[in-house]
Amino acid sequence: MKFKTIEWKKDLVRILDQRKLPQEIRYLECRGASAVAKAIRNMAIRGAPAIGVGAAMGIALAARKIRSNHPEIFWTKIEEVCHLMGETRPTAVNLFWAIERMRRALNQLHSEDVEGLKSRLEREALQIYREDVEINRKIGENGKSLIQDGVGALTHCNAGGLATAGYGTALGVIRSAWAEGKRFHVYVDETRPLLQGARLTAWELIQEKIPCTVITDSMAGSLMEKGKINLVLVGADRIARNGDTANKIGTYSLAVLANWHQIPFYVAAPTSTFDLNLTSGKDIPIEERAAEEVTHVGGRRVTPEGVKVFNPAFDVTPHSLIEAIITEKGLLRKPFEKAMRWVVDK
Amino acid sequence: MKFKTIEWKKDLVRILDQRKLPQEIRYLECRGASAVAKAIRNMAIRGAPAIGVGAAMGIALAARKIRSNHPEIFWTKIEEVCHLMGETRPTAVNLFWAIERMRRALNQLHSEDVEGLKSRLEREALQIYREDVEINRKIGENGKSLIQDGVGALTHCNAGGLATAGYGTALGVIRSAWAEGKRFHVYVDETRPLLQGARLTAWELIQEKIPCTVITDSMAGSLMEKGKINLVLVGADRIARNGDTANKIGTYSLAVLANWHQIPFYVAAPTSTFDLNLTSGKDIPIEERAAEEVTHVGGRRVTPEGVKVFNPAFDVTPHSLIEAIITEKGLLRKPFEKAMRWVVDK
Repeated sequence: MKFKTIEWKKDLVRILDQRKLPQEIRYLECRGASAVAKAIRNMAIRGAPAIGVGAAMGIALAARKIRSNHPEIFWTKIEEVCHLMGETRPTAVNLFWAIERMRRALNQLHSEDVEGLKSRLEREALQIYREDVEINRKIGENGKSLIQDGVGALTHCNAGGLATAGYGTALGVIRSAWAEGKRFHVYVDETRPLLQGARLTAWELIQEKIPCTVITDSMAGSLMEKGKINLVLVGADRIARNGDTANKIGTYSLAVLANWHQIPFYVAAPTSTFDLNLTSGKDIPIEERAAEEVTHVGGRRVTPEGVKVFNPAFDVTPHSLIEAIITEKGLLRKPFEKAMRWVVDK
Repeated sequence: MKFKTIEWKKDLVRILDQRKLPQEIRYLECRGASAVAKAIRNMAIRGAPAIGVGAAMGIALAARKIRSNHPEIFWTKIEEVCHLMGETRPTAVNLFWAIERMRRALNQLHSEDVEGLKSRLEREALQIYREDVEINRKIGENGKSLIQDGVGALTHCNAGGLATAGYGTALGVIRSAWAEGKRFHVYVDETRPLLQGARLTAWELIQEKIPCTVITDSMAGSLMEKGKINLVLVGADRIARNGDTANKIGTYSLAVLANWHQIPFYVAAPTSTFDLNLTSGKDIPIEERAAEEVTHVGGRRVTPEGVKVFNPAFDVTPHSLIEAIITEKGLLRKPFEKAMRWVVDK
């Protein structure tokens, strides 16, 4: 990849500002946890695995900046930062998973040496970062056989290198299939309101020279009906125990349309996206974002003044509409609950 | 209505420039047929019934401007203008229907008096205009019982006063139900790429004080699943003999989603939208528009340079997914072919 989504620079966390892409390549230099939290909240960095990495680095950065050598003060501050990070976005569970991992790393240390605690947190954040790339590559390996030569694959939003520490989940599968020599075409839903497909996924695919066509979200059904789309491949923000999957708004409609046209619908996600505490997708909290994301495009108002807007960032696709979940530990098929428990215990 | 979509001003045709709405209310003063044709082509005026009226007024305007008194020269010029108008947009059949009506009006006159021919064309264009409002009101009357108190109704694109000479087809039904005292909520698909829902439909509904919420096109399925949408109501650009209906891209997906959620899907259109020459929707020509409509929003590029785009303006919804077609001559139910022939002969 020709860009780095996020980077640990000791005294700062460097984040590629995805709100400006692909027109401007600009990096944010976050010198404290609150700057990282802000970047997650305002979606300068987005994508479930990437915000998990962001939260971990934000906690490690906050730790570095703590001046006190009192373990108690250190612990209190870290708890505050964990809370701050957890408040940024509610749907993607990878965020909470990463925060928990950072907490556990500290807890396991049984040390009162603040410097030691700081470097432990730094190591853990970097570990989460490096593992994520590795996990994505395994997801790619495990999913690549699902893409046949000559097909049209549809993807929604951005589940690419920009949504992760690198390589991508759904785009990781596409990258792996392409690297293997398969030749196919990718249809990219532009993905309103924030156009992550048109801006980010198209940008990644063009860099990889993988042929792609951007369409408006409303065109997918018509292309399926014409036989141009042979599989749908998306990422995930949270997967409940039964396989119900929260992902970018519009994913549910695609899953229904795919089922109607007898086209397989795949979810690609690391197992850190699983939330085995939730029995079904009904319990997944769905973030509602500001009306301006819909009423304004590129800073300009498009709707009339005073109009009401509904702007949920995600929807939930029931497990019944999902053909398989592609994880770093293998390809999961129904019944998902059994398969998910099996890979988590593995 | 507080605006006039199109107006005959003798020496010019005044067209509300819908590309600028709702931020700017600007009128185009078209002083010749080519200016009218351009306004149709670039979608300053759009919507099947409105472009039919536009074509008719364009022909009448061209006639007024012909200086020659030779009937033969007059006829040749009128034929050229009819051809010009017919080339503007290929999908909406109302355009061809209006052009044919203008031709027939001339043919029936059996006169060689050029001034008489001119005023005959002017009368016919004004007749088409006035009839269209009347037809819309009848569509409203015939459809209003389909909207129950307390429901959520989804509409796509703009099938309102702006898409017609006034009042609207799908929005006509909504206006009539509201005028009758029913209280309900309208969900408005923003309708990418040109955002006719977010810009035009929301603007019309706000003027009427009918409660509405704008959503991105990808949200409709999720709202149906939550039980917020109880019926779908759209316009049409061309309806084949079997009931297959071409309408704004995204309509087909909505029809599939409505069927999946057991929600009735209605088409509201004048009988001038029927094309009884076509056995099915497969034969309807689908206009593909410029890539810039997708790659740029509000004049700004959003996609990376060099990306491929697919931009069909319409899709075809099979008759099997349509619960009823609401026309000025009554509510048509399946089998549509029989019902359509019956109302056309009526």
